[in-house]
Amino acid sequence: MAEMGSPSLKITYKNAVLFSHLFMQNLICQGDTVLDATCGNGNDTLFLADLVGDTGKVYAFDIQLVAINNTKEKLLNNLVAERVKLIHDTHESIDYYIDDQLDGAMFNLGYLPNTDTDLITLPSSTLSAIQKTLILLKEGGLITIVFYTGHFGGLKELEVVEANLSSLDQNEWVVSHHKFINQINHPPQLITIQRIRR
Amino acid sequence: MAEMGSPSLKITYKNAVLFSHLFMQNLICQGDTVLDATCGNGNDTLFLADLVGDTGKVYAFDIQLVAINNTKEKLLNNLVAERVKLIHDTHESIDYYIDDQLDGAMFNLGYLPNTDTDLITLPSSTLSAIQKTLILLKEGGLITIVFYTGHFGGLKELEVVEANLSSLDQNEWVVSHHKFINQINHPPQLITIQRIRR
Repeated sequence: MAEMGSPSLKITYKNAVLFSHLFMQNLICQGDTVLDATCGNGNDTLFLADLVGDTGKVYAFDIQLVAINNTKEKLLNNLVAERVKLIHDTHESIDYYIDDQLDGAMFNLGYLPNTDTDLITLPSSTLSAIQKTLILLKEGGLITIVFYTGHFGGLKELEVVEANLSSLDQNEWVVSHHKFINQINHPPQLITIQRIRR
Repeated sequence: MAEMGSPSLKITYKNAVLFSHLFMQNLICQGDTVLDATCGNGNDTLFLADLVGDTGKVYAFDIQLVAINNTKEKLLNNLVAERVKLIHDTHESIDYYIDDQLDGAMFNLGYLPNTDTDLITLPSSTLSAIQKTLILLKEGGLITIVFYTGHFGGLKELEVVEANLSSLDQNEWVVSHHKFINQINHPPQLITIQRIRR
Protein backbone atom coordinates (compact mmCIF):
# COMPACT_ATOMS: atom_id res chain seq x y z
CA MET A 1 0.00 0.00 0.00
CA ALA A 2 1.21 3.54 -0.72
CA GLU A 3 2.44 5.74 2.13
CA MET A 4 0.17 8.33 3.72
CA GLY A 5 0.63 11.48 1.69
CA SER A 6 -0.74 14.23 -0.50
CA PRO A 7 -1.69 13.50 -4.11
CA SER A 8 1.55 15.19 -5.16
CA LEU A 9 3.41 12.30 -3.53
CA LYS A 10 1.48 9.72 -5.52
CA ILE A 11 2.96 7.71 -8.37
CA THR A 12 2.05 8.88 -11.87
CA TYR A 13 1.53 6.11 -14.43
CA LYS A 14 2.84 8.39 -17.14
CA ASN A 15 4.96 6.38 -19.56
CA ALA A 16 6.15 2.98 -20.77
CA VAL A 17 9.49 3.16 -18.94
CA LEU A 18 7.72 3.79 -15.63
CA PHE A 19 5.47 0.74 -16.20
CA SER A 20 8.53 -1.38 -17.04
CA HIS A 21 10.19 -0.30 -13.77
CA LEU A 22 7.04 -0.92 -11.75
CA PHE A 23 6.66 -4.46 -13.10
CA MET A 24 10.35 -5.28 -12.48
CA GLN A 25 10.31 -3.72 -9.01
CA ASN A 26 7.43 -5.95 -7.93
CA LEU A 27 9.18 -9.07 -9.21
CA ILE A 28 12.97 -8.87 -8.91
CA CYS A 29 14.52 -9.99 -5.62
CA GLN A 30 17.90 -9.41 -4.00
CA GLY A 31 20.33 -12.02 -5.32
CA ASP A 32 18.57 -12.32 -8.70
CA THR A 33 20.35 -12.45 -12.06
CA VAL A 34 19.06 -10.02 -14.69
CA LEU A 35 19.87 -8.59 -18.10
CA ASP A 36 19.86 -5.05 -19.48
CA ALA A 37 19.95 -5.84 -23.18
CA THR A 38 20.35 -2.20 -24.22
CA CYS A 39 22.13 -0.24 -21.52
CA GLY A 40 22.17 3.07 -23.38
CA ASN A 41 22.94 5.73 -20.77
CA GLY A 42 22.71 3.18 -17.97
CA ASN A 43 19.44 4.19 -16.34
CA ASP A 44 17.92 0.69 -16.46
CA THR A 45 21.29 -0.88 -15.60
CA LEU A 46 21.52 1.19 -12.42
CA PHE A 47 17.85 0.48 -11.63
CA LEU A 48 18.46 -3.28 -11.97
CA ALA A 49 21.73 -3.15 -9.99
CA ASP A 50 19.80 -1.54 -7.11
CA LEU A 51 17.06 -4.22 -7.29
CA VAL A 52 19.37 -7.25 -7.24
CA GLY A 53 21.56 -5.84 -4.47
CA ASP A 54 25.06 -6.89 -3.39
CA THR A 55 24.32 -10.58 -3.93
CA GLY A 56 22.79 -10.20 -7.40
CA LYS A 57 24.20 -9.93 -10.90
CA VAL A 58 23.37 -7.71 -13.88
CA TYR A 59 24.52 -8.37 -17.44
CA ALA A 60 24.42 -5.17 -19.49
CA PHE A 61 24.97 -5.02 -23.26
CA ASP A 62 25.38 -2.24 -25.74
CA ILE A 63 26.85 -2.18 -29.23
CA GLN A 64 27.96 1.45 -28.81
CA LEU A 65 31.12 2.12 -26.81
CA VAL A 66 29.81 5.53 -25.69
CA ALA A 67 26.86 3.74 -24.07
CA ILE A 68 29.14 1.31 -22.25
CA ASN A 69 31.29 4.19 -21.01
CA ASN A 70 28.32 6.30 -19.89
CA THR A 71 26.87 3.31 -18.05
CA LYS A 72 30.20 2.42 -16.42
CA GLU A 73 30.55 5.98 -15.11
CA LYS A 74 26.99 5.95 -13.73
CA LEU A 75 27.54 2.61 -11.97
CA LEU A 76 30.86 3.76 -10.47
CA ASN A 77 29.29 6.99 -9.22
CA ASN A 78 26.60 4.91 -7.51
CA LEU A 79 29.05 2.35 -6.07
CA VAL A 80 27.33 -0.64 -7.74
CA ALA A 81 29.78 -1.35 -10.59
CA GLU A 82 30.82 -4.71 -9.10
CA ARG A 83 27.27 -6.05 -9.50
CA VAL A 84 27.30 -5.45 -13.26
CA LYS A 85 29.06 -7.25 -16.10
CA LEU A 86 29.26 -4.68 -18.92
CA ILE A 87 29.57 -6.17 -22.38
CA HIS A 88 30.40 -4.09 -25.46
CA ASP A 89 28.71 -6.24 -28.09
CA THR A 90 25.33 -6.65 -29.79
CA HIS A 91 22.58 -8.17 -27.62
CA GLU A 92 22.24 -10.77 -30.36
CA SER A 93 25.30 -12.37 -28.73
CA ILE A 94 23.87 -12.78 -25.23
CA ASP A 95 23.90 -16.57 -25.53
CA TYR A 96 27.66 -16.32 -26.04
CA TYR A 97 28.18 -14.44 -22.75
CA ILE A 98 25.41 -15.68 -20.43
CA ASP A 99 25.23 -19.20 -18.98
CA ASP A 100 23.00 -18.36 -15.99
CA GLN A 101 19.23 -18.45 -16.12
CA LEU A 102 17.63 -15.00 -15.86
CA ASP A 103 15.01 -13.69 -13.43
CA GLY A 104 14.42 -10.63 -15.57
CA ALA A 105 15.51 -8.77 -18.69
CA MET A 106 14.92 -5.22 -19.91
CA PHE A 107 15.02 -4.02 -23.51
CA ASN A 108 14.83 -0.31 -24.30
CA LEU A 109 14.85 -0.07 -28.08
CA GLY A 110 15.31 2.72 -30.59
CA TYR A 111 18.53 4.71 -30.48
CA LEU A 112 20.82 6.16 -27.84
CA PRO A 113 19.68 9.70 -26.92
CA ASN A 114 21.93 12.52 -28.17
CA THR A 115 23.83 10.33 -30.58
CA ASP A 116 23.67 8.94 -34.09
CA THR A 117 19.98 8.31 -34.86
CA ASP A 118 21.00 6.28 -37.90
CA LEU A 119 22.18 3.60 -35.52
CA ILE A 120 18.87 2.08 -34.37
CA THR A 121 17.84 -1.36 -33.22
CA LEU A 122 16.41 -3.42 -36.09
CA PRO A 123 13.51 -5.91 -36.09
CA SER A 124 15.59 -8.94 -37.05
CA SER A 125 18.32 -8.44 -34.45
CA THR A 126 15.83 -7.34 -31.79
CA LEU A 127 13.73 -10.46 -32.38
CA SER A 128 16.80 -12.68 -32.33
CA ALA A 129 17.95 -11.15 -29.01
CA ILE A 130 14.48 -11.53 -27.49
CA GLN A 131 14.25 -15.17 -28.56
CA LYS A 132 17.64 -15.92 -27.01
CA THR A 133 16.50 -14.20 -23.82
CA LEU A 134 13.30 -16.27 -23.71
CA ILE A 135 15.45 -19.41 -23.66
CA LEU A 136 17.43 -18.11 -20.66
CA LEU A 137 14.36 -16.99 -18.67
CA LYS A 138 13.47 -18.78 -15.41
CA GLU A 139 9.92 -19.76 -14.54
CA GLY A 140 8.35 -16.58 -13.16
CA GLY A 141 10.92 -14.46 -14.98
CA LEU A 142 9.90 -11.28 -16.81
CA ILE A 143 11.07 -9.47 -19.96
CA THR A 144 10.11 -5.82 -20.54
CA ILE A 145 10.53 -4.23 -23.98
CA VAL A 146 10.06 -0.48 -24.50
CA PHE A 147 9.41 0.51 -28.12
CA TYR A 148 9.89 3.94 -29.68
CA THR A 149 7.75 4.35 -32.77
CA GLY A 150 8.56 7.98 -33.56
CA HIS A 151 11.71 7.33 -35.59
CA PHE A 152 11.93 5.67 -38.99
CA GLY A 153 11.55 1.89 -38.61
CA GLY A 154 10.33 2.08 -35.03
CA LEU A 155 6.73 1.18 -35.76
CA LYS A 156 7.81 -1.65 -38.07
CA GLU A 157 10.02 -3.01 -35.28
CA LEU A 158 7.04 -3.03 -32.88
CA GLU A 159 4.78 -4.72 -35.44
CA VAL A 160 7.30 -7.45 -36.23
CA VAL A 161 8.06 -8.21 -32.57
CA GLU A 162 4.38 -8.05 -31.52
CA ALA A 163 3.32 -10.43 -34.30
CA ASN A 164 6.01 -12.88 -33.26
CA LEU A 165 5.29 -12.72 -29.52
CA SER A 166 1.53 -13.10 -30.12
CA SER A 167 2.23 -16.67 -31.17
CA LEU A 168 3.93 -17.71 -27.90
CA ASP A 169 2.12 -20.62 -26.19
CA GLN A 170 -0.20 -19.16 -23.52
CA ASN A 171 0.41 -22.20 -21.34
CA GLU A 172 4.05 -21.18 -20.99
CA TRP A 173 4.02 -17.39 -21.49
CA VAL A 174 1.93 -14.35 -20.61
CA VAL A 175 2.49 -11.58 -23.15
CA SER A 176 0.91 -8.19 -22.55
CA HIS A 177 0.97 -4.93 -24.50
CA HIS A 178 0.68 -1.56 -22.75
CA LYS A 179 0.07 1.66 -24.68
CA PHE A 180 -0.98 5.25 -24.07
CA ILE A 181 -4.06 6.12 -26.08
CA ASN A 182 -4.67 9.86 -25.54
CA GLN A 183 -1.27 11.28 -26.49
CA ILE A 184 -0.29 12.98 -29.74
CA ASN A 185 2.86 12.01 -31.64
CA HIS A 186 4.24 8.58 -30.76
CA PRO A 187 4.42 7.78 -27.04
CA PRO A 188 6.68 4.80 -26.29
CA GLN A 189 4.86 1.47 -25.89
CA LEU A 190 5.65 -1.48 -23.64
CA ILE A 191 5.41 -5.23 -24.20
CA THR A 192 6.03 -7.59 -21.29
CA ILE A 193 6.62 -11.34 -21.44
CA GLN A 194 6.51 -13.54 -18.34
CA ARG A 195 7.34 -17.24 -18.32
CA ILE A 196 4.68 -19.08 -16.30
CA ARG A 197 5.98 -22.60 -16.95
CA ARG A 198 9.37 -24.04 -17.79
CA MET B 1 11.56 -4.48 -4.15
CA ALA B 2 10.11 -8.00 -3.95
CA GLU B 3 10.94 -10.18 -0.96
CA MET B 4 13.69 -12.80 -1.14
CA GLY B 5 12.05 -15.94 -2.39
CA SER B 6 11.68 -18.71 -4.94
CA PRO B 7 10.08 -18.01 -8.33
CA SER B 8 6.91 -19.64 -7.02
CA LEU B 9 6.59 -16.70 -4.61
CA LYS B 10 6.87 -14.19 -7.44
CA ILE B 11 3.93 -12.19 -8.74
CA THR B 12 2.45 -13.39 -12.04
CA TYR B 13 1.22 -10.62 -14.35
CA LYS B 14 -1.48 -12.89 -15.64
CA ASN B 15 -4.66 -10.89 -16.14
CA ALA B 16 -6.35 -7.49 -16.32
CA VAL B 17 -7.77 -7.69 -12.79
CA LEU B 18 -4.31 -8.32 -11.35
CA PHE B 19 -2.93 -5.26 -13.20
CA SER B 20 -5.82 -3.14 -11.91
CA HIS B 21 -5.03 -4.24 -8.33
CA LEU B 22 -1.31 -3.61 -8.77
CA PHE B 23 -1.88 -0.06 -10.04
CA MET B 24 -4.34 0.74 -7.22
CA GLN B 25 -2.11 -0.82 -4.56
CA ASN B 26 0.81 1.42 -5.55
CA LEU B 27 -1.36 4.52 -5.43
CA ILE B 28 -4.09 4.33 -2.80
CA CYS B 29 -3.21 5.45 0.73
CA GLN B 30 -4.83 4.85 4.12
CA GLY B 31 -7.53 7.44 4.63
CA ASP B 32 -8.31 7.76 0.93
CA THR B 33 -11.82 7.90 -0.53
CA VAL B 34 -12.49 5.47 -3.39
CA LEU B 35 -15.27 4.03 -5.53
CA ASP B 36 -16.13 0.51 -6.61
CA ALA B 37 -18.56 1.30 -9.42
CA THR B 38 -19.53 -2.34 -9.97
CA CYS B 39 -19.18 -4.30 -6.75
CA GLY B 40 -20.37 -7.63 -8.18
CA ASN B 41 -19.32 -10.28 -5.69
CA GLY B 42 -17.38 -7.73 -3.65
CA ASN B 43 -13.81 -8.73 -4.47
CA ASP B 44 -12.71 -5.24 -5.53
CA THR B 45 -14.77 -3.67 -2.73
CA LEU B 46 -12.93 -5.75 -0.12
CA PHE B 47 -9.60 -5.03 -1.83
CA LEU B 48 -10.29 -1.28 -1.70
CA ALA B 49 -11.56 -1.41 1.90
CA ASP B 50 -8.25 -3.02 2.91
CA LEU B 51 -6.25 -0.34 1.05
CA VAL B 52 -8.00 2.70 2.55
CA GLY B 53 -7.94 1.27 6.08
CA ASP B 54 -9.97 2.33 9.13
CA THR B 55 -9.74 6.01 8.25
CA GLY B 56 -10.76 5.65 4.61
CA LYS B 57 -14.06 5.37 2.79
CA VAL B 58 -15.31 3.16 -0.05
CA TYR B 59 -18.46 3.82 -2.07
CA ALA B 60 -19.67 0.62 -3.74
CA PHE B 61 -22.49 0.47 -6.30
CA ASP B 62 -24.38 -2.32 -7.96
CA ILE B 63 -27.73 -2.37 -9.73
CA GLN B 64 -28.30 -6.01 -8.70
CA LEU B 65 -29.49 -6.68 -5.14
CA VAL B 66 -27.76 -10.08 -5.12
CA ALA B 67 -24.43 -8.30 -5.74
CA ILE B 68 -25.06 -5.87 -2.88
CA ASN B 69 -25.94 -8.76 -0.55
CA ASN B 70 -22.93 -10.86 -1.58
CA THR B 71 -20.64 -7.88 -1.07
CA LYS B 72 -22.18 -7.00 2.31
CA GLU B 73 -21.61 -10.54 3.54
CA LYS B 74 -17.99 -10.51 2.34
CA LEU B 75 -17.32 -7.19 4.07
CA LEU B 76 -18.93 -8.33 7.33
CA ASN B 77 -16.91 -11.56 7.28
CA ASN B 78 -13.74 -9.47 6.91
CA LEU B 79 -14.75 -6.90 9.57
CA VAL B 80 -14.46 -3.93 7.21
CA ALA B 81 -18.17 -3.22 6.56
CA GLU B 82 -18.02 0.14 8.38
CA ARG B 83 -15.54 1.48 5.81
CA VAL B 84 -17.94 0.89 2.92
CA LYS B 85 -21.12 2.67 1.84
CA LEU B 86 -23.05 0.11 -0.22
CA ILE B 87 -25.50 1.61 -2.69
CA HIS B 88 -28.09 -0.47 -4.54
CA ASP B 89 -28.44 1.67 -7.65
CA THR B 90 -26.91 2.09 -11.11
CA HIS B 91 -23.41 3.62 -11.17
CA GLU B 92 -24.88 6.23 -13.49
CA SER B 93 -26.24 7.83 -10.30
CA ILE B 94 -22.89 8.23 -8.49
CA ASP B 95 -23.13 12.02 -8.70
CA TYR B 96 -26.35 11.78 -6.69
CA TYR B 97 -24.68 9.87 -3.83
CA ILE B 98 -21.06 11.12 -3.79
CA ASP B 99 -20.00 14.65 -2.78
CA ASP B 100 -16.38 13.81 -1.88
CA GLN B 101 -13.54 13.89 -4.36
CA LEU B 102 -12.14 10.46 -5.20
CA ASP B 103 -8.56 9.15 -4.98
CA GLY B 104 -9.46 6.10 -7.02
CA ALA B 105 -12.27 4.23 -8.75
CA MET B 106 -12.59 0.68 -10.07
CA PHE B 107 -14.94 -0.52 -12.80
CA ASN B 108 -15.29 -4.22 -13.53
CA LEU B 109 -17.71 -4.45 -16.45
CA GLY B 110 -19.63 -7.24 -18.11
CA TYR B 111 -22.05 -9.23 -15.99
CA LEU B 112 -22.17 -10.68 -12.48
CA PRO B 113 -20.70 -14.22 -12.53
CA ASN B 114 -23.22 -17.05 -12.07
CA THR B 115 -26.24 -14.85 -12.72
CA ASP B 116 -28.32 -13.46 -15.55
CA THR B 117 -25.95 -12.81 -18.47
CA ASP B 118 -28.67 -10.79 -20.17
CA LEU B 119 -28.10 -8.11 -17.57
CA ILE B 120 -24.81 -6.60 -18.77
CA THR B 121 -23.27 -3.15 -18.52
CA LEU B 122 -24.00 -1.10 -21.65
CA PRO B 123 -21.75 1.41 -23.48
CA SER B 124 -23.97 4.43 -22.90
CA SER B 125 -24.44 3.91 -19.15
CA THR B 126 -20.82 2.83 -18.67
CA LEU B 127 -19.58 5.94 -20.45
CA SER B 128 -21.92 8.16 -18.46
CA ALA B 129 -20.70 6.62 -15.17
CA ILE B 130 -17.05 7.00 -16.19
CA GLN B 131 -17.56 10.64 -17.16
CA LYS B 132 -19.21 11.38 -13.81
CA THR B 133 -16.30 9.66 -12.07
CA LEU B 134 -13.77 11.76 -14.02
CA ILE B 135 -15.40 14.89 -12.61
CA LEU B 136 -15.02 13.58 -9.04
CA LEU B 137 -11.39 12.46 -9.44
CA LYS B 138 -8.64 14.26 -7.48
CA GLU B 139 -5.33 15.25 -9.05
CA GLY B 140 -3.24 12.06 -8.99
CA GLY B 141 -6.39 9.94 -8.77
CA LEU B 142 -6.75 6.77 -10.85
CA ILE B 143 -9.63 4.95 -12.54
CA THR B 144 -9.25 1.31 -13.61
CA ILE B 145 -11.76 -0.28 -16.00
CA VAL B 146 -11.72 -4.03 -16.71
CA PHE B 147 -13.51 -5.01 -19.94
CA TYR B 148 -14.88 -8.45 -20.84
CA THR B 149 -15.19 -8.84 -24.59
CA GLY B 150 -16.30 -12.48 -24.72
CA HIS B 151 -20.02 -11.83 -24.27
CA PHE B 152 -22.35 -10.17 -26.78
CA GLY B 153 -21.84 -6.39 -26.71
CA GLY B 154 -18.63 -6.58 -24.69
CA LEU B 155 -16.29 -5.67 -27.55
CA LYS B 156 -18.58 -2.84 -28.63
CA GLU B 157 -18.52 -1.49 -25.07
CA LEU B 158 -14.71 -1.47 -25.11
CA GLU B 159 -14.57 0.24 -28.52
CA VAL B 160 -17.03 2.97 -27.51
CA VAL B 161 -15.30 3.71 -24.21
CA GLU B 162 -11.79 3.57 -25.71
CA ALA B 163 -12.72 5.94 -28.54
CA ASN B 164 -14.16 8.38 -26.02
CA LEU B 165 -11.22 8.22 -23.58
CA SER B 166 -8.69 8.61 -26.43
CA SER B 167 -9.90 12.18 -26.80
CA LEU B 168 -9.15 13.22 -23.19
CA ASP B 169 -6.66 16.12 -23.01
CA GLN B 170 -3.19 14.67 -22.42
CA ASN B 171 -2.28 17.72 -20.33
CA GLU B 172 -4.88 16.67 -17.75
CA TRP B 173 -5.16 12.90 -18.17
CA VAL B 174 -2.98 9.86 -18.82
CA VAL B 175 -5.02 7.08 -20.45
CA SER B 176 -3.41 3.68 -20.98
CA HIS B 177 -4.70 0.44 -22.49
CA HIS B 178 -3.37 -2.95 -21.31
CA LYS B 179 -4.13 -6.15 -23.17
CA PHE B 180 -2.92 -9.73 -23.39
CA ILE B 181 -1.81 -10.60 -26.91
CA ASN B 182 -1.01 -14.33 -26.89
CA GLN B 183 -4.24 -15.76 -25.48
CA ILE B 184 -7.05 -17.45 -27.38
CA ASN B 185 -10.69 -16.50 -26.84
CA HIS B 186 -11.21 -13.07 -25.28
CA PRO B 187 -8.98 -12.29 -22.29
CA PRO B 188 -10.25 -9.30 -20.27
CA GLN B 189 -8.59 -5.98 -21.08
CA LEU B 190 -7.77 -3.02 -18.84
CA ILE B 191 -7.95 0.73 -19.43
CA THR B 192 -6.57 3.09 -16.77
CA ILE B 193 -7.15 6.83 -16.51
CA GLN B 194 -5.09 9.03 -14.17
CA ARG B 195 -5.71 12.73 -13.62
CA ILE B 196 -2.40 14.57 -13.73
CA ARG B 197 -3.82 18.09 -13.41
CA ARG B 198 -6.96 19.52 -11.89
